[in-house]
Amino acid sequence: MKRISILGSTGSIGTQALDVIRNNRDRYSVAALSCAGSVELLRKQIEEFRPEAAALAFEKDACMLSAEYKDVEFYWGKDGLNEIASMEGCDMVLNSLMGMRGLEPTLAAAEHGKDIAFANKETLVAGGEIVTETVRKNNVKLLPVDSEHSAIFQCLQGNEGNPIKRIILTASGGPFRGYTLKQLQKVTLEQALNHPNWSMGSKITIDSATMMNKGLEVIEAKWLFDVPLDKIQIVVHPQSVLHSAVEYEDCSVIGQLGNPDMRVPIAYAFAYPKRIDLGGSVSSLDMFSFEGGLTFHKADTDVFKTINMAYEASRRGGSYPVVLNGANEVLVDKFLHGLIGFTDIQNFLEKILEEHDPIYNLTLEQVLEEDRKIRELTEAITI
Amino acid sequence: MKRISILGSTGSIGTQALDVIRNNRDRYSVAALSCAGSVELLRKQIEEFRPEAAALAFEKDACMLSAEYKDVEFYWGKDGLNEIASMEGCDMVLNSLMGMRGLEPTLAAAEHGKDIAFANKETLVAGGEIVTETVRKNNVKLLPVDSEHSAIFQCLQGNEGNPIKRIILTASGGPFRGYTLKQLQKVTLEQALNHPNWSMGSKITIDSATMMNKGLEVIEAKWLFDVPLDKIQIVVHPQSVLHSAVEYEDCSVIGQLGNPDMRVPIAYAFAYPKRIDLGGSVSSLDMFSFEGGLTFHKADTDVFKTINMAYEASRRGGSYPVVLNGANEVLVDKFLHGLIGFTDIQNFLEKILEEHDPIYNLTLEQVLEEDRKIRELTEAITI
Repeated sequence: MKRISILGSTGSIGTQALDVIRNNRDRYSVAALSCAGSVELLRKQIEEFRPEAAALAFEKDACMLSAEYKDVEFYWGKDGLNEIASMEGCDMVLNSLMGMRGLEPTLAAAEHGKDIAFANKETLVAGGEIVTETVRKNNVKLLPVDSEHSAIFQCLQGNEGNPIKRIILTASGGPFRGYTLKQLQKVTLEQALNHPNWSMGSKITIDSATMMNKGLEVIEAKWLFDVPLDKIQIVVHPQSVLHSAVEYEDCSVIGQLGNPDMRVPIAYAFAYPKRIDLGGSVSSLDMFSFEGGLTFHKADTDVFKTINMAYEASRRGGSYPVVLNGANEVLVDKFLHGLIGFTDIQNFLEKILEEHDPIYNLTLEQVLEEDRKIRELTEAITI
Repeated sequence: MKRISILGSTGSIGTQALDVIRNNRDRYSVAALSCAGSVELLRKQIEEFRPEAAALAFEKDACMLSAEYKDVEFYWGKDGLNEIASMEGCDMVLNSLMGMRGLEPTLAAAEHGKDIAFANKETLVAGGEIVTETVRKNNVKLLPVDSEHSAIFQCLQGNEGNPIKRIILTASGGPFRGYTLKQLQKVTLEQALNHPNWSMGSKITIDSATMMNKGLEVIEAKWLFDVPLDKIQIVVHPQSVLHSAVEYEDCSVIGQLGNPDMRVPIAYAFAYPKRIDLGGSVSSLDMFSFEGGLTFHKADTDVFKTINMAYEASRRGGSYPVVLNGANEVLVDKFLHGLIGFTDIQNFLEKILEEHDPIYNLTLEQVLEEDRKIRELTEAITI
């Protein structure tokens, strides 16, 4: 029985992870749950999965639930996440937090010898070096849950020692594929939240629409698979059937395909290197269902400027990726609140990166401080 | 240094295998070569690769070459193939023979502890049980070289113990995809020899046109991967980019993609589990080159009747697959010599299978005898 702590259990990945556990009670149990604000949903999850512990964002919520569930240990705030990521009764941590707040719990989990199912790309973008170093030192597994990175990871199996020639990182292209810059400027929040293939949280949905998500994934892939940026090729594939692929030196390309369903990569991270029968809950790929075929296109980096910004920030290194990520998180939030327009995200980001005065060889404290500073600076932006 | 005996070195697979060896002289050397009739090409290959031995179909050719190359041991006939498949100075045998005559050398290689790079599907169709049993007993590797089976084999790596849900065996559909039965009846030899994607020997090219090749591959896959027939799905994919795929119980599909180039599967069999850099000789897959996308279709089994015949022959077992294969070899040969029409191949085959009086649990001698009998019977057919 593998006991899993789920950081971010009320989000899109969290609820789907609980669905995998629900259908595999003989294999997995819930060690701990966490949420920021969805207290009602967390209550239902506690009743169904009876975790040992739970973490909430606010003390008042933790106290309220603590009075109701005497046999559950409640924590709150940042320390709460670290607590359930490192607690004794847990074998694996699923980090499905959104944004940089996943960094410290990731390190806590690794330092306490927990394998990590990882769906928190911002943490690797900002703290890639620190995270991968901590994971290596503590000899734990960092198992990707993002569909693309899980695909790549699956394609790497059985190829130990075979050098990677190219990673083909597929992208749906988002809802605005084919738009001109002019069309992109008129995009509304409602349009941006309407992703064609994947049902996801709002931050990642906007990142998909700006294609920053793909930029962040390039950086994530670089760290997860120790591959240089120039070997990572973004390929727009609107049908989202090929979830990504790896080319080896013999020009053989191994790809992972399937219907878009996050339970597949979640279950793979949980069961690795085994695969579990997901029963009727996940459907088999119908090879005869692709009307118009599977198509592959170049990303339009003149319109979606975030892509080159991400490559460039990662190439420059140091505090640049921290700034890219922190500023993006704040700008997306501003867009979600109607404070800035859609293309303002990439325009402001471009300016912020241009004006950034970098530092290098960052400690954890410096990563957090740079992140704090850039958020403050970005928060102050108004149109 | 791996020393390789190549059975069928002047054929399509054989010459491409020598190309792989030519570009990887530090890894591979040629232990022995063999050919049926292309003596001039064999002479060039002997001069370039300086094998320890060579086998020819006819004694007179062997004697002639023996006089020229004093340091090469020459053999002839059936025993010659067995000799170079089992000789001491060889570590691996590439069986790229066409047809059932590859059966005995395959067994000889396995019995002498040689790993086998295998591109001789007829042998597995007719002698699947005997071959796989001999391979298992002698603990040697049977490494597929057919592009589809190599693809499947590559997709199985890193998945030890993960049950297979489905094998997706792709087929180009051949030059007559979309034809009606009426159109198929008018097909000429020239049209049938013109395969859209792969450059291959004439027997396999005709088998591709009738789709019997795919039927034989289904049976080959059953034996190579120990998978029941109903888990093997033929998918017509005219672009020949996805070379085949494996679906696991979690509905994750792992596929192998690439340009159609037999040197990739040949090199994979030679180097397994490593992959070697094939340098400039093989080209990388251009993901932006698929005009009209990658498409996938059902095979038209009403027109291409060989497919269901193959499934059915394998399902029935015993001598049925021997008959399927032996009769097909003779019928294809008759078509190549202009003695019968294109659809006569499947029509006669249907009749022969219907009238066959099966035996079961065949010994090697019985396989050879059944094969001999059905060839005799099929030879006698005239229109």
